[in-house]
Amino acid sequence: MDAHALQAYLHRHIPVSQAMGITVLSASLETIVLRAALEPNLNHRSTAFGGSVASLAVLAGWSLLRLGLDSFKPTPQIVIQRSTMNYTLPIEADFDAVCHRPDDAAWQRFLRAFERRGRGRLEVDVDVRVEGRSAAHLHAGFVALRS
Amino acid sequence: MDAHALQAYLHRHIPVSQAMGITVLSASLETIVLRAALEPNLNHRSTAFGGSVASLAVLAGWSLLRLGLDSFKPTPQIVIQRSTMNYTLPIEADFDAVCHRPDDAAWQRFLRAFERRGRGRLEVDVDVRVEGRSAAHLHAGFVALRS
Repeated sequence: MDAHALQAYLHRHIPVSQAMGITVLSASLETIVLRAALEPNLNHRSTAFGGSVASLAVLAGWSLLRLGLDSFKPTPQIVIQRSTMNYTLPIEADFDAVCHRPDDAAWQRFLRAFERRGRGRLEVDVDVRVEGRSAAHLHAGFVALRS
Repeated sequence: MDAHALQAYLHRHIPVSQAMGITVLSASLETIVLRAALEPNLNHRSTAFGGSVASLAVLAGWSLLRLGLDSFKPTPQIVIQRSTMNYTLPIEADFDAVCHRPDDAAWQRFLRAFERRGRGRLEVDVDVRVEGRSAAHLHAGFVALRS
C-alpha cells in the first residue's frame, strides 16, 4: 500500500478524513506523513481545532500499523486503546502528522506477540508539525488483533 | 448561551462539528451533552473512528468552560493543553459526550485564578456513552486566558 492507495483507503472507509481535507504525503514501512488542510479544521480562533489535530495524529499512528501489517491475510484489526495529546503551539496553517516506526526491538516484539497469540500491542509517537515547528504530540497505544 | 445557541456557534465557528453531525442535546452551567451521528464518523470497521470520539469529547469539555465563562467580557480564550483518551468499547451507534462541571472547590479555584491573573487552568472529565454504556473517557486540561 503506497501513499496514493492509503489516501484512497482513508477517504473511502473513514469519511471524516475527506471532510478534514487529509492527504497522504508519504507512506512507507518506516514513516507515515499525513497533512490536513487548515480551513475545514478551523476553530473559533482561526487556528486548528484540537480535536482535528488529535484525529490527524491518530490516523497517522493507525496508518503506520496498517502498512506494517499489510502482509498478513486477512488484514488484522487495528484498534486504538489509549492516547495522550500534548498541545504546545497554536496551528495557523496546514499541518502534518509524522509517525516513525518505533525502534526495531519494540516492532519485533509486537510482531512476535501478534503471530503467537493473535494479539500484539504497540506504542507509537506522532509529532504534529506546522511550518517546520512541532505544535503537538500524540503518544498512543494500539492493539492488532487477528481477524 | 443555551443548547440551540451553542450548536449554532459550534457549526458556524468549528466547521468540522457540522461535518461530524454534532448536535447539542443539553447545555447548562452544570452539564454539557453533545451527540455525534455515527455515519459521518465511521471507520473501516463500521464503528466510530477514534479521532472523532476524541473530537466530540474535546468539544464537550470546551463547551463547559465556554458556558461557565459566558459572563466575562470580552469572552476569554479557552485553549486545550493536554488530554488523555481511554477507549473501552467499540461504538456502533450515535454516541454522546457528557461533561459535568468539576466539584465546586475546583471550579472556584479556576475562577479566582482567572480573575486575579487573567489565566486559570481547569481539568475536566468527559464520558463518551453509546446505548447507555460508557465507551470512552477523556481527561483534559484547559486554560482560560483573558482576551
